[in-house]
Amino acid sequence: MTPDDIKSFFADEDDLHKEDYFFLTYWFETKLDPQIQAASLCAEMSTAQWTWKNQNRDLRLKHAAKVVHLEILEKAAGPSFRSSFSKGDSFTRCLVRIAYPRLNFEDGLPNLLTAVAGEGPFFCSGITSLKLLDIEFPESYLQHFSGPRFGIDGLRGFLNIYHRPLFLGVVKPNIGLTPEEFSEVAYSSWLGGLDIAKDDEMLGDAEWSPLETRCRLVGRKRKEAEEKTGTSKMYLANITDEVDRLCKLHDIAVREGANAVMVNCMTIGLSAVRMLARHAAVPVVGHFVFTAAFSRLPFFGVSSVVITKLQRLCGCDLIIMPGFGARMFTEEEEVLDNVDACVESFGHVKRSLPMPAGSDWAGTLQSVSEKMRNIDFGFGCGRGVFAHPSGPEAGAQSLHQAWDAIVEKIPLEVYAEDHRELKEAIAAFGQERAQPLKPFISKI
Amino acid sequence: MTPDDIKSFFADEDDLHKEDYFFLTYWFETKLDPQIQAASLCAEMSTAQWTWKNQNRDLRLKHAAKVVHLEILEKAAGPSFRSSFSKGDSFTRCLVRIAYPRLNFEDGLPNLLTAVAGEGPFFCSGITSLKLLDIEFPESYLQHFSGPRFGIDGLRGFLNIYHRPLFLGVVKPNIGLTPEEFSEVAYSSWLGGLDIAKDDEMLGDAEWSPLETRCRLVGRKRKEAEEKTGTSKMYLANITDEVDRLCKLHDIAVREGANAVMVNCMTIGLSAVRMLARHAAVPVVGHFVFTAAFSRLPFFGVSSVVITKLQRLCGCDLIIMPGFGARMFTEEEEVLDNVDACVESFGHVKRSLPMPAGSDWAGTLQSVSEKMRNIDFGFGCGRGVFAHPSGPEAGAQSLHQAWDAIVEKIPLEVYAEDHRELKEAIAAFGQERAQPLKPFISKI
Repeated sequence: MTPDDIKSFFADEDDLHKEDYFFLTYWFETKLDPQIQAASLCAEMSTAQWTWKNQNRDLRLKHAAKVVHLEILEKAAGPSFRSSFSKGDSFTRCLVRIAYPRLNFEDGLPNLLTAVAGEGPFFCSGITSLKLLDIEFPESYLQHFSGPRFGIDGLRGFLNIYHRPLFLGVVKPNIGLTPEEFSEVAYSSWLGGLDIAKDDEMLGDAEWSPLETRCRLVGRKRKEAEEKTGTSKMYLANITDEVDRLCKLHDIAVREGANAVMVNCMTIGLSAVRMLARHAAVPVVGHFVFTAAFSRLPFFGVSSVVITKLQRLCGCDLIIMPGFGARMFTEEEEVLDNVDACVESFGHVKRSLPMPAGSDWAGTLQSVSEKMRNIDFGFGCGRGVFAHPSGPEAGAQSLHQAWDAIVEKIPLEVYAEDHRELKEAIAAFGQERAQPLKPFISKI
Repeated sequence: MTPDDIKSFFADEDDLHKEDYFFLTYWFETKLDPQIQAASLCAEMSTAQWTWKNQNRDLRLKHAAKVVHLEILEKAAGPSFRSSFSKGDSFTRCLVRIAYPRLNFEDGLPNLLTAVAGEGPFFCSGITSLKLLDIEFPESYLQHFSGPRFGIDGLRGFLNIYHRPLFLGVVKPNIGLTPEEFSEVAYSSWLGGLDIAKDDEMLGDAEWSPLETRCRLVGRKRKEAEEKTGTSKMYLANITDEVDRLCKLHDIAVREGANAVMVNCMTIGLSAVRMLARHAAVPVVGHFVFTAAFSRLPFFGVSSVVITKLQRLCGCDLIIMPGFGARMFTEEEEVLDNVDACVESFGHVKRSLPMPAGSDWAGTLQSVSEKMRNIDFGFGCGRGVFAHPSGPEAGAQSLHQAWDAIVEKIPLEVYAEDHRELKEAIAAFGQERAQPLKPFISKI
């Protein structure tokens, strides 16, 4: 590229009409000149060729992505990962902020993902490694999205709980229970004070547990539990399935007695989440299945924060994400960034309830709560409730006891002295009470 | 786990009723005992907990994934990538083949992806890095899928071309042309002998080029070109958009004059591809957008081969994949594995036409053709046709001339002596004729 061509892919952010652009942040690595590579990245993801035979119109004027900030982070003696395409001993790592023209596509999410995480950025020849870290959206784009129908306030209103985190439980064992067995287990957990009993992300509409039967039986038990406890309860049914079955499965689930639905967003596709949320009469919950495959490495792929923002945009009222601790392979900073993405200001879009999850139990509630800095989160347990030595009812009770201890500022072990269920939980799960559970299989 | 528990996640493949299982291949890395970690992987992706309070039924009997082969590949002094979750200096790298129970879910693709690339495998606590390499499907699962309606034979019949690769061209400039300009450019390329003129993967239904108008104008030009050349032509329209618009956009595109449709499979979701293919009256083409984000690294994520198999299963008649050469960041072996996945025996499922692509032009046809070992492939060019110094018609002609030279076993430069368009292509694009094009921007 000539110096003039390079310049044409750079702009001063203050000179741009911000409403006309997405702002994208990428981390990238190159052996070549970072300025030229940043310009090249912009060209590849927009107008790779901006003139054509016998024409003078320069397509860059309307359609080119533009570098608005380029920061050299470090020089490295080797690539982030070695392959036949990233050899050598001198690499520059950079952070680049790019203004991407709003008008290059309409309001489709698949088209947005194509531009920002498609062939352009990932096949930019001088860039040996790249990660999309963030997207900022123009208001005119956001306005095409309704976002969560219920959001945090709606979920709280639904359950009539305003002064603590919501307590969720993934019914365990996750696979293989009959609908009858499942409904009994869920019922016990509700009696103990669980707010939301949910399907595992792997439990779908299977021959040995058809969604319709499961929802009918669990729905009945939910109503029984509501009558018995005098509180509202939620059964969150996993309706993940083919996109053309989602709305139908939602209708079946809700008709039979589920009052929230979950989908594994990246396996059905974010666009299908958007479609479902528009149709749904009950809260929609998004699970993080598959996201790790492209978000875990710090130097390659697409950040989980981008996916959380898109899930919120698509209408997820509650977003389940990998939680704190080495068990979930996610740095604390990344968890907190995802939590922020659920609740930060986002145009007219309501807040989604964040649920950082993974092997939690009564003993981790305090540390999770401290990290979250407020009570607007879902606290989800699997075995922490369902493998409690005295059963799911006691498991759910142990969560409430742990919360009461936190509120009353009494050390957990002291509070456990005259709270049997908490004491049993500590005995069963926690040598070190702030640690998440070890996997079941290593316990045996 | 006790030795008995570990054993319960191992099986002899010969003892299994193969129709009841998917067979999965993973590469993984661990600091711990590979046997226990392989068992742990099986547990996490199926029955993480197999008993529950007061019950004796062992859920593993029906629902457990089982290791049928475990191979230690190498011991490594460090992890494939360093993070706070993969530190240390002694890692074992393994290949494991797992039998996954067919009955754990119905025929939904999102549920399959949930099991094989979801929380189970990617959050298995002792496994610091993992890549899903392959899935083999039981016939009873395949039978739920119709696969490509046309496939290679259908595409050839459609175009009446049986003795050479199909020539495709991505109309360039990719973004910013008006529908009128676009139709003129496509028309020229057809006159020169291009079989299929296609939209870029980034060109959707935009305000400055509405799909309906583009298809109408390009469709007219297609018919003109067919009359003038006496051959069949194809206009491949990119209908990538929200899932609930796909069938409608297909109908509009076909009504107005497109006779094939393209989607960016991973951004709309594979399940949406399946839905579209069931609806489509014309060939469906899948593009590789987004797949690199989780498939490029050899030690993490999900292999592109898995996605190619799933695209074929979902009904893609033609599959566009990253092609040969460093420009496309894909090892030759991986390209060929993806080509095989398009054409190998796959139950009743028809063959998809593979199109390994990336910066090709007349000069790379011979090397691509040699690597492909037969003529059943799509050869796709962008600038190789549309930035030819004498225009797209000459660009398309240069492809035919290159093919004739190959068939007649005449060296390209010799053949170019009395074939002007080929000669110009070589002068413009090829110091070294077997090399793919450099990016446009570095040419200026």
